[in-house]
Amino acid sequence: MKIMVINPNSSEEMTRQIEQVLSQIKRPETELTVVRVEEAPPAIESDTDIAQAVPGVLRLVRRANAEGYDAVILACFSDPGLSAAREVSEILVLGIEESSLHVAAMLGHKFTVLTPLPQRVPKKEREIKALGLGETLASVRPLGLTVTETEAEPERTKARVLEVSRKAIEEDGAEVLVLGCAGMTGYSEDIEKSLGVIVIDPTSITLKVAEGMVEAGLKHSKRALYRTPEAPVDQKEDHK
Amino acid sequence: MKIMVINPNSSEEMTRQIEQVLSQIKRPETELTVVRVEEAPPAIESDTDIAQAVPGVLRLVRRANAEGYDAVILACFSDPGLSAAREVSEILVLGIEESSLHVAAMLGHKFTVLTPLPQRVPKKEREIKALGLGETLASVRPLGLTVTETEAEPERTKARVLEVSRKAIEEDGAEVLVLGCAGMTGYSEDIEKSLGVIVIDPTSITLKVAEGMVEAGLKHSKRALYRTPEAPVDQKEDHK
Amino acid sequence: MKIMVINPNSSEEMTRQIEQVLSQIKRPETELTVVRVEEAPPAIESDTDIAQAVPGVLRLVRRANAEGYDAVILACFSDPGLSAAREVSEILVLGIEESSLHVAAMLGHKFTVLTPLPQRVPKKEREIKALGLGETLASVRPLGLTVTETEAEPERTKARVLEVSRKAIEEDGAEVLVLGCAGMTGYSEDIEKSLGVIVIDPTSITLKVAEGMVEAGLKHSKRALYRTPEAPVDQKEDHK
Amino acid sequence: MKIMVINPNSSEEMTRQIEQVLSQIKRPETELTVVRVEEAPPAIESDTDIAQAVPGVLRLVRRANAEGYDAVILACFSDPGLSAAREVSEILVLGIEESSLHVAAMLGHKFTVLTPLPQRVPKKEREIKALGLGETLASVRPLGLTVTETEAEPERTKARVLEVSRKAIEEDGAEVLVLGCAGMTGYSEDIEKSLGVIVIDPTSITLKVAEGMVEAGLKHSKRALYRTPEAPVDQKEDHK
Amino acid sequence: MKIMVINPNSSEEMTRQIEQVLSQIKRPETELTVVRVEEAPPAIESDTDIAQAVPGVLRLVRRANAEGYDAVILACFSDPGLSAAREVSEILVLGIEESSLHVAAMLGHKFTVLTPLPQRVPKKEREIKALGLGETLASVRPLGLTVTETEAEPERTKARVLEVSRKAIEEDGAEVLVLGCAGMTGYSEDIEKSLGVIVIDPTSITLKVAEGMVEAGLKHSKRALYRTPEAPVDQKEDHK
Amino acid sequence: MKIMVINPNSSEEMTRQIEQVLSQIKRPETELTVVRVEEAPPAIESDTDIAQAVPGVLRLVRRANAEGYDAVILACFSDPGLSAAREVSEILVLGIEESSLHVAAMLGHKFTVLTPLPQRVPKKEREIKALGLGETLASVRPLGLTVTETEAEPERTKARVLEVSRKAIEEDGAEVLVLGCAGMTGYSEDIEKSLGVIVIDPTSITLKVAEGMVEAGLKHSKRALYRTPEAPVDQKEDHK
Repeated sequence: MKIMVINPNSSEEMTRQIEQVLSQIKRPETELTVVRVEEAPPAIESDTDIAQAVPGVLRLVRRANAEGYDAVILACFSDPGLSAAREVSEILVLGIEESSLHVAAMLGHKFTVLTPLPQRVPKKEREIKALGLGETLASVRPLGLTVTETEAEPERTKARVLEVSRKAIEEDGAEVLVLGCAGMTGYSEDIEKSLGVIVIDPTSITLKVAEGMVEAGLKHSKRALYRTPEAPVDQKEDHK
Repeated sequence: MKIMVINPNSSEEMTRQIEQVLSQIKRPETELTVVRVEEAPPAIESDTDIAQAVPGVLRLVRRANAEGYDAVILACFSDPGLSAAREVSEILVLGIEESSLHVAAMLGHKFTVLTPLPQRVPKKEREIKALGLGETLASVRPLGLTVTETEAEPERTKARVLEVSRKAIEEDGAEVLVLGCAGMTGYSEDIEKSLGVIVIDPTSITLKVAEGMVEAGLKHSKRALYRTPEAPVDQKEDHK
Repeated sequence: MKIMVINPNSSEEMTRQIEQVLSQIKRPETELTVVRVEEAPPAIESDTDIAQAVPGVLRLVRRANAEGYDAVILACFSDPGLSAAREVSEILVLGIEESSLHVAAMLGHKFTVLTPLPQRVPKKEREIKALGLGETLASVRPLGLTVTETEAEPERTKARVLEVSRKAIEEDGAEVLVLGCAGMTGYSEDIEKSLGVIVIDPTSITLKVAEGMVEAGLKHSKRALYRTPEAPVDQKEDHK
Repeated sequence: MKIMVINPNSSEEMTRQIEQVLSQIKRPETELTVVRVEEAPPAIESDTDIAQAVPGVLRLVRRANAEGYDAVILACFSDPGLSAAREVSEILVLGIEESSLHVAAMLGHKFTVLTPLPQRVPKKEREIKALGLGETLASVRPLGLTVTETEAEPERTKARVLEVSRKAIEEDGAEVLVLGCAGMTGYSEDIEKSLGVIVIDPTSITLKVAEGMVEAGLKHSKRALYRTPEAPVDQKEDHK
Repeated sequence: MKIMVINPNSSEEMTRQIEQVLSQIKRPETELTVVRVEEAPPAIESDTDIAQAVPGVLRLVRRANAEGYDAVILACFSDPGLSAAREVSEILVLGIEESSLHVAAMLGHKFTVLTPLPQRVPKKEREIKALGLGETLASVRPLGLTVTETEAEPERTKARVLEVSRKAIEEDGAEVLVLGCAGMTGYSEDIEKSLGVIVIDPTSITLKVAEGMVEAGLKHSKRALYRTPEAPVDQKEDHK
Repeated sequence: MKIMVINPNSSEEMTRQIEQVLSQIKRPETELTVVRVEEAPPAIESDTDIAQAVPGVLRLVRRANAEGYDAVILACFSDPGLSAAREVSEILVLGIEESSLHVAAMLGHKFTVLTPLPQRVPKKEREIKALGLGETLASVRPLGLTVTETEAEPERTKARVLEVSRKAIEEDGAEVLVLGCAGMTGYSEDIEKSLGVIVIDPTSITLKVAEGMVEAGLKHSKRALYRTPEAPVDQKEDHK
């Protein structure tokens, strides 16, 4: 099974980190390719960043289709370009936000999503409601750190995650925590032990969901929401 | 990895059928045990049937915990006793309704659940809303067959599934179909080809989700909703 | 009019207490029989307890039908087995949670439910939403006492109820309070005076609703959700 | 127990009809006074009609408070002026729409409301959602008759009710029918027999709910939503 | 373009204030007539007040239709009689609550409504949900001042508005503030500067929306919800 | 007042058409500039098209800010890039979908959106729910025509619009129709006459809303959801 993991930003460091975490948890027979979007910003922290990253994401999704991959994972917790990616793809495309939140919804009464910046909380809340998961959302809580800072300062990040998680559990009734930024990848086990709740690392569980769906022969429906655009490719491509 | 699959009814035939389907899709290293609830009705078609089956389900879940299993799957599309099972279990317990519907919600705009009997449609709609998935539900459509009939008459069942599925797609906008009865296990591939939509066999995908969650080290939170009952076991057990 | 009140646990003390409160409020012509489920746990504090109590509840509901009762009341604020009870019953079956919450929703902007244990808050919230009453729910607030403690220590219970009620009113905007445990039966009048809000004793109001429905000739619809199970009784009964 | 039933329109015929139906179902000890709003339109068929009726309704509610009544019932299926009536009343005020729909929600999966005119369907749907009961609403179905016609032509009305009810059951999944107009009072028993579902006569069941609430000592909370207006009465009264 | 602005209470002072604010913001070609309801209470602070004001509101709306106005604005933040006013009007009728809240919903994640009295918070929350805008509501926060006080003590009102607004922003996540009382008209600019958020003066923006809708040829649909009542006018009028 | 209208596709014909319609309805003092996104596809019919158009939209929004415009309108009924556009803009940005649907929600019970292609119905439904307007949506109905066809064949388009509108009114209860494609611009008046309901041309009403908001001094809140991205501009710009 060949799975392409797309890091939608241009950070080489974060790309390496994702690869390292996933290599430890992937099944032996899974061939993993982790790529980044070179023309994207170094971190995805706004809808403007997303707009800049999506064309590159789509180019990589098309490549994965052309090169015989079985599935694609978008490894950024805002699923940038997920709908468009599914439109242009015949193979399964999963986003780590959508996938991990559906898993979170199964494992307890309500979940809290930890997100880097306070100003992104409204967007995150809207995304979760748009996924149809508003009823199992306890809260979105910001760390008050930029994505870059979460990468650069692991100890400070971990301490903040612990502090914010405690509030989510005690004040919002969270039973499951979701580490809502690829930059937090790898802390879940430590935190779970300290706090006695379930902590989900979105990238890791999405890899497992992808492996399972491929084995079960499942992919997204191409009927309407994700139908392949009908307009002739050449007509549209010449505008690029 | 050791997984116990509990068929909550007493039908030996359905138990065999589940085992056969899952054996083909399980990973080589997964050890699968499929058991039935001997004192349960031969089919689960009412809340009265569920009430009769649950005590036996809990006994088997306790046994799975005692015998070193990694996960338990309840293989009946009403997840009978799922909450109580998670209360008494330290290992992951998944229900095929909850698990497959979260997967269905990821793969298209809306899903339709096929269910055997028309009188169970209201209950099914309530279960799906209670799971927090009402917004991605297209419809629940009955086959007009008893669970026993779906087992006994595979050709008639398949024909009805095709007919009802077509209506779900054209009239309700379904992009994903969920075969909401363990008795339909095994038809999904055929139907998918005929109708060009995604068809989910709940038991199969739940096995894959379970394998993935165990590998990712995830299970249900024991914090509140599924907390182990606090009353002294001996005090309560002596009523049995 | 003959009404059977089922205390779904095995506590003789709580059964006596329910009988005493209801005797004072019932109409002269109402014949009241209060029974307990002998094989149930002494208190219902988890879904595991509910699973253990329900078969006995159903046996008593069948008896009420056979012995010419006009209605049955399930006197535990989690309505254990209500759906199944209505399936097997031709006479009206009311649960004190469902009935009292619909009354609460009529009497003010939002209601708060007081519940014994903090770990049951998530379950209670889910039940209330499943009843379709999520929009009129202000909050579920735990006393931090076991059901047994609410029975055993009336003064401490009353003091806690007052304290928690005050928070519900001031912080959650509750205009109506519902004493969400049969063990609190009998305190509502005192508390109402102290706090100047409406306090509902679920068992009492459910008796009045039952008397009124019987006089109006109403009972639950047997069309689908509560349809009598179709499978032959003898086939299923022999598993018991 | 003294209960005042206010017919918010000026029709003497409908007032008599309400009195006749309620006299047969009231408890022997209940003293019933049925009054009409003389300055109101002969039927309430628009929000303009409601605006014209409400001042008279409030005058009667104040009279019921002054004359020692125990409860007031507004006997028009749009609960005209219910909020204001509760503001000016220290005794229980019930509206037949709110009360009967909460009862309907308890007795089956979903209910359908029959209403006289097609153009009032949107308003009715909005009222039911505003009561927080949108989740248990199957549909609002119009008879295509004016309120006056439902009074004047009982046979035609009954035939239409049967026809529309059948559609509600078969097409909308209704398990309970609510006769949403005081002018239909008295048909429920006949219709119930023909269609095998539960039919609710709002005025009748509201009388039983009122009797039960008075006996249980319940009334609406005066805390905020229905608080007595604080402005000095004389200052405001002199505008009348 | 001729626009009639109805102040639904009888306060001459507030009527003058509304006229003054709107004169500064209206387009040169707009002819503005601001009128009050003489028989209404001096302030609208309860549903009882609304019931008293509505007949006069309808009389003025009819006058506006007869005298060739292009639109009517109800300038009280509870839209008293809006539905009935639209029934009796062939020209556009806008309420300042409905109009300003739809604008607020467009300009940020969530809005907070400031309202004079704490006991009106539940009513306000219900009105906003009934408008279908519950999802974009951050909170309703009371100033703890009567409408009359907000008129009489502008400095105290402004200070309270600032204090309460700060809490709405920090604790409820409000991005837009709506000054939910005509008596606050005129403070929005000052407050916006102090707090760095968007502040909406409902009367002002509703005038601009009305001017725009008239130019675009839009008014409310007369199809069903706001259909002109069918009963003969003379029959009904003679009750007045 | 200077307003830039961005046609997010590259069609010169559609750009001219938008300009023509808006010129007739704009106020005399409004300076209107209608521009197209040259590198975008000729029509926006998929999320892939949107991804291709958004970078150009953002470039034009930045230009409008730099050149002293008062407001920007995105003239495509999927509001492509609206969030990002508001992030990068200090001046008001309106999308014709969001603006026209809030107006539609004010003018009747429920609205229907007409959209060109059947496969886009699910996306449209999701957008409307994400705007928080799901409760006032009657339906989304497809014309079964491509955007290009709606431009090229005005008579066929108008006939289809009439046919589909009639179904929306009779079967879905729509009281307001929204012409959900810039390509339908200009038909609303004719259709309104034929069907007796309110028809909204999104581009026209959005221009009027924009003019009114600019006059009232309103724009989107920059507090969180639309906060200007914090990352250094130079660092990000060099990827373009």
